[in-house]
Amino acid sequence: MMDVGIIGASGYTGAELARILCNHPEVNITVATSRQFAGQPLSRIFPNLSNRLDIICENLSPEQLKRKADFFFTAVPHKTAMDIVPALLSAGKKVVDLSADFRIRDRATYEEWYQPHTSDHLLAEAVYGLPEIYRESIVKSRLVANPGCYPTSIILGLAPLLKAGAIQHHTIIADSKSGTSGAGRAAQIGSLFCEVHDGFKPYKVGRNHRHTPEIEQELSSFAGEKVTITFTPHLLPISRGILSTVYGNLNPGFNTTAISELYQEMYSSQSFIRLLDEDTFPATQYVRGSNFCDIGFKIDSVTNRIIIMTAIDNVVKGAAGQAVQNMNLMCGFKEATGLEIIPLFP
Amino acid sequence: MMDVGIIGASGYTGAELARILCNHPEVNITVATSRQFAGQPLSRIFPNLSNRLDIICENLSPEQLKRKADFFFTAVPHKTAMDIVPALLSAGKKVVDLSADFRIRDRATYEEWYQPHTSDHLLAEAVYGLPEIYRESIVKSRLVANPGCYPTSIILGLAPLLKAGAIQHHTIIADSKSGTSGAGRAAQIGSLFCEVHDGFKPYKVGRNHRHTPEIEQELSSFAGEKVTITFTPHLLPISRGILSTVYGNLNPGFNTTAISELYQEMYSSQSFIRLLDEDTFPATQYVRGSNFCDIGFKIDSVTNRIIIMTAIDNVVKGAAGQAVQNMNLMCGFKEATGLEIIPLFP
Amino acid sequence: MMDVGIIGASGYTGAELARILCNHPEVNITVATSRQFAGQPLSRIFPNLSNRLDIICENLSPEQLKRKADFFFTAVPHKTAMDIVPALLSAGKKVVDLSADFRIRDRATYEEWYQPHTSDHLLAEAVYGLPEIYRESIVKSRLVANPGCYPTSIILGLAPLLKAGAIQHHTIIADSKSGTSGAGRAAQIGSLFCEVHDGFKPYKVGRNHRHTPEIEQELSSFAGEKVTITFTPHLLPISRGILSTVYGNLNPGFNTTAISELYQEMYSSQSFIRLLDEDTFPATQYVRGSNFCDIGFKIDSVTNRIIIMTAIDNVVKGAAGQAVQNMNLMCGFKEATGLEIIPLFP
Amino acid sequence: MMDVGIIGASGYTGAELARILCNHPEVNITVATSRQFAGQPLSRIFPNLSNRLDIICENLSPEQLKRKADFFFTAVPHKTAMDIVPALLSAGKKVVDLSADFRIRDRATYEEWYQPHTSDHLLAEAVYGLPEIYRESIVKSRLVANPGCYPTSIILGLAPLLKAGAIQHHTIIADSKSGTSGAGRAAQIGSLFCEVHDGFKPYKVGRNHRHTPEIEQELSSFAGEKVTITFTPHLLPISRGILSTVYGNLNPGFNTTAISELYQEMYSSQSFIRLLDEDTFPATQYVRGSNFCDIGFKIDSVTNRIIIMTAIDNVVKGAAGQAVQNMNLMCGFKEATGLEIIPLFP
Repeated sequence: MMDVGIIGASGYTGAELARILCNHPEVNITVATSRQFAGQPLSRIFPNLSNRLDIICENLSPEQLKRKADFFFTAVPHKTAMDIVPALLSAGKKVVDLSADFRIRDRATYEEWYQPHTSDHLLAEAVYGLPEIYRESIVKSRLVANPGCYPTSIILGLAPLLKAGAIQHHTIIADSKSGTSGAGRAAQIGSLFCEVHDGFKPYKVGRNHRHTPEIEQELSSFAGEKVTITFTPHLLPISRGILSTVYGNLNPGFNTTAISELYQEMYSSQSFIRLLDEDTFPATQYVRGSNFCDIGFKIDSVTNRIIIMTAIDNVVKGAAGQAVQNMNLMCGFKEATGLEIIPLFP
Repeated sequence: MMDVGIIGASGYTGAELARILCNHPEVNITVATSRQFAGQPLSRIFPNLSNRLDIICENLSPEQLKRKADFFFTAVPHKTAMDIVPALLSAGKKVVDLSADFRIRDRATYEEWYQPHTSDHLLAEAVYGLPEIYRESIVKSRLVANPGCYPTSIILGLAPLLKAGAIQHHTIIADSKSGTSGAGRAAQIGSLFCEVHDGFKPYKVGRNHRHTPEIEQELSSFAGEKVTITFTPHLLPISRGILSTVYGNLNPGFNTTAISELYQEMYSSQSFIRLLDEDTFPATQYVRGSNFCDIGFKIDSVTNRIIIMTAIDNVVKGAAGQAVQNMNLMCGFKEATGLEIIPLFP
Repeated sequence: MMDVGIIGASGYTGAELARILCNHPEVNITVATSRQFAGQPLSRIFPNLSNRLDIICENLSPEQLKRKADFFFTAVPHKTAMDIVPALLSAGKKVVDLSADFRIRDRATYEEWYQPHTSDHLLAEAVYGLPEIYRESIVKSRLVANPGCYPTSIILGLAPLLKAGAIQHHTIIADSKSGTSGAGRAAQIGSLFCEVHDGFKPYKVGRNHRHTPEIEQELSSFAGEKVTITFTPHLLPISRGILSTVYGNLNPGFNTTAISELYQEMYSSQSFIRLLDEDTFPATQYVRGSNFCDIGFKIDSVTNRIIIMTAIDNVVKGAAGQAVQNMNLMCGFKEATGLEIIPLFP
Repeated sequence: MMDVGIIGASGYTGAELARILCNHPEVNITVATSRQFAGQPLSRIFPNLSNRLDIICENLSPEQLKRKADFFFTAVPHKTAMDIVPALLSAGKKVVDLSADFRIRDRATYEEWYQPHTSDHLLAEAVYGLPEIYRESIVKSRLVANPGCYPTSIILGLAPLLKAGAIQHHTIIADSKSGTSGAGRAAQIGSLFCEVHDGFKPYKVGRNHRHTPEIEQELSSFAGEKVTITFTPHLLPISRGILSTVYGNLNPGFNTTAISELYQEMYSSQSFIRLLDEDTFPATQYVRGSNFCDIGFKIDSVTNRIIIMTAIDNVVKGAAGQAVQNMNLMCGFKEATGLEIIPLFP
């Protein structure tokens, strides 16, 4: 049994890590931190965990943390992560960082969208934690940058097409819709039940969402040239789930059969990708609580445009589940261990 | 006081017509029909109406209907409408038809998407009931084809831009999201609470939704040439509301100021269009229950793409409210009469 | 036209007062206060109001307020209200106070549940603002204490029965369920979408909710002796609405017919009470956005227990709507003016 | 590995049995029946199951069923169950019946609430499947009548108190609130999203719900005399979850400590009961997807009344989860096998 620590346990991602790791046969949660709730049982903050997890939140320095576990998940805001991760690595620990701090390989780009980077010596080493794309590197890594939730949904939908040159990348538009857990557990008016419920709205429209550079970095890598997209996030009145509807013009020679084959080739042996039958489309309610990414597509032959639709649970495949998938790879466990959760429907 | 009839009163649109017309100072509801609920008070089917509307649902022939009112709303499925409307017009009545039967001016196009048209002699006469575009024709008309809910949200957002040649029309993509009332009140598994709640999904993707030809007809008319778009509907876990996120590439010379002016010019004196300030985006919860169409936009200068966002209540501006707005124009009432409803939030 | 002021306009109750008063033909909103949002248009905080209400939030002293309007709604927290109301009354203004400060006639009881009362000289004068019960006193009053939302739903259901001695008052249990708007617009974790959505829970169980003394005061007054009840509030994942299910044992001689007659007698001429037919029960969705209180009941003859069910919109009949109803009475307007809103369903 | 069959797989309970049994290490699902969807993969009806369960729905006679599995869950409507179960038992199979057909030991009572019983010879043999109460009998049984969802929530809350004589049973009132999955997957207007969403209502008030006799049978058994209660079901706008708020007057000598001890004594070693700390109350969102029953209580000393609150997931502990718990006991598996699911929150 490996001892693991959750740094930042009192957010929704932290709690979800706890939910998943509790049933993981290879690990023990030995430390969970929270500044705000230090001294309280995590199961008092998240009563769903009670009778299954008996751990008290602590407020610890990196120095103290090192003695508590062998593997760490840093589920803290960007900036905070870069202050903690180096110390953990220096102590010989492995880390999956769920913040944005190590996702963007280009320091200047990071600093344009966030703030100065104080641990940029780790940027080259950190592996972008999409196992379906970077499995081999993840296996050998000690620092994995867990992808953002929107990027996961968009990148997985586009990767096979961009790699094969099937899509005209300057035509890509990603219209994404996310559940409210993506906004975190901070007490703010915009996340109140009465503000979100029975409503729907776009936000941070027009290159204003910080997931943009992360998406473009990966898409550019597949395309072999700089890809610039339009990405529009929207807020759904649901707790969990992201559905991305991605548009692009096809290059000549790619019809439904050809596109299907591209997806099959890349994903048919992946545990957590479900490719949908023709004329079947994904829905967030069919991936709820699970690590699946469901992918469907449809070609509009009149406009020669492809519509790719992907659904994930933003808290699982978009955060905690993918983090555990990465841990499994980094530690030599079976990739799907602890993640064989069937989606909860209804 | 004018006597008005609601044909097809037991659906959500019929009930909403009743809600609005009850408080309309110029009309009396004198007849409401329903095959399924004939003999029952409408307020037993829709208890929200009780103590305000005292009318029994009837199942009447067009012959009988003619004696009951001077103005009719046909809130029935397509095909059914074309069987009723001619008789009403022949009897000298005015009609707002809320079905699709008279929306599409080209018979062949109608028949491609629906079924044979048996009242096509009226197609040339029927006016497409978007008052912000066709007010003068509506005023003189005896038959108005009330627009579909999705088309209303998309056409109002694009009209000023297409008329001014601001947008490259072959790049237009409309990603639309609708509340579940749009699926009507029929008892079907896909509309059950447990299937829709806490979820989100696309449907009829890729030129498969019957609102497509209606949208393209109007956009083509503005552009002066055939416009073909990609339109993707999605189902939101809310009762009311449509939000359309519409994308297109701008032609040279159109920046934020220029686009703002186009909207101002066309809509600043319209009672039911609210143009949002820069960096403010619409939300369905701010138009709930009202006849407003809120419009915002943002230009992504890196991709030279405009993102237009519109929000309406699909049951009001997308159906019953717009129908009453049309009636007001057709009958010489003040356009906003009975429609000065402030959105219900939260 | 009378000038009215909304003190505390940035909460849900304040916004709802604005929504209702905007369409009230006898009044102008001349001032709206908010400490937090001073300087901002109210329609920026609540975009549903835009194009209908053009007023800037201000932060004003009672001294300044006096010059701004003739009638005031104080939609502020308890304690704050008692600091403002006396100055307004001294300046000859009339006030409907929506806080708890003047609801409880007995100072000691107030202080037991809240804190010391600094304006207790007004307690004897303030009228408890349930028009269906205290209409005559309200008409003559300059200070009305607008009832709490839960108390409105419970008291209206029980009044006829207690007045007639139909119910054994020591057996009364009120199991009440409220929408989340009742928790206000404060940014707190417990009101976040993700905490409330798709869930349900009781809170402040067992004589711990501050509406208890207010309910018991009124019930005692009807019964002519001290009534002590059990009241359990629950939090519903809806925005608006309270449904109270109230239980009590019947005294001999009261069957369904007799109870129906008691309700008819007291309520049949009331504009905002809808008595439901036998075996028809109220639902919050049928009163949404309106000032109605729907009442149904059922007698379980095996246990000789009556189950009374009432539904209101907590923001309307439970707050802003009832406040306007009180204003109408205090100012000689028709009681239903501005309140002829039909519930919004679906 | 034991072969198990799900009879009636296309309802929400059937699908939930599939979800749970898929991850159960001791069983294989070898047959799933559905009249309506025969020939279709179960994972097409419930796409959440895809990639995890590969089974086609069949329409089979009891004769055919017998050859398909060793253990059966009958998740069919009452009346249908009594036609199937005897044949399965005769063939030496064990059965958990999720209908009402074998829950009520007294034939006359069953027939009063349902219809004539054609398999009443099995009534004496069938064990009421509440493991926390009847574990020993379940272990030895070949036919378990799985309890109703409301009864599970109410009976578990009251059992320790009635057994100890702590409560005056003629004062018991159960005010219960259920998620919409309890209404099943039948296409009916009352279960449509738009009818249920953002609303709340009671139904079948006053001894009209068929779970009443089942509840009273069990409570009477604990009390040792006939117990008659008032039970009011309500419909919540959530998918899953029942919260019951149960009221009763205490007998002398039972204070908070004494009541706590009664609960501890009976439940502290039970895997699926979580007793909450004082002043902590259950919530449906903290048991979602799990087999837990959370129990809290509060004594209102002024009225000498206890308020007991219990929360379960109606589809799990109220149906499929409890059925699997019963199967585990009947088959000698560890009681919690396959049920170690942590509630999904948010």
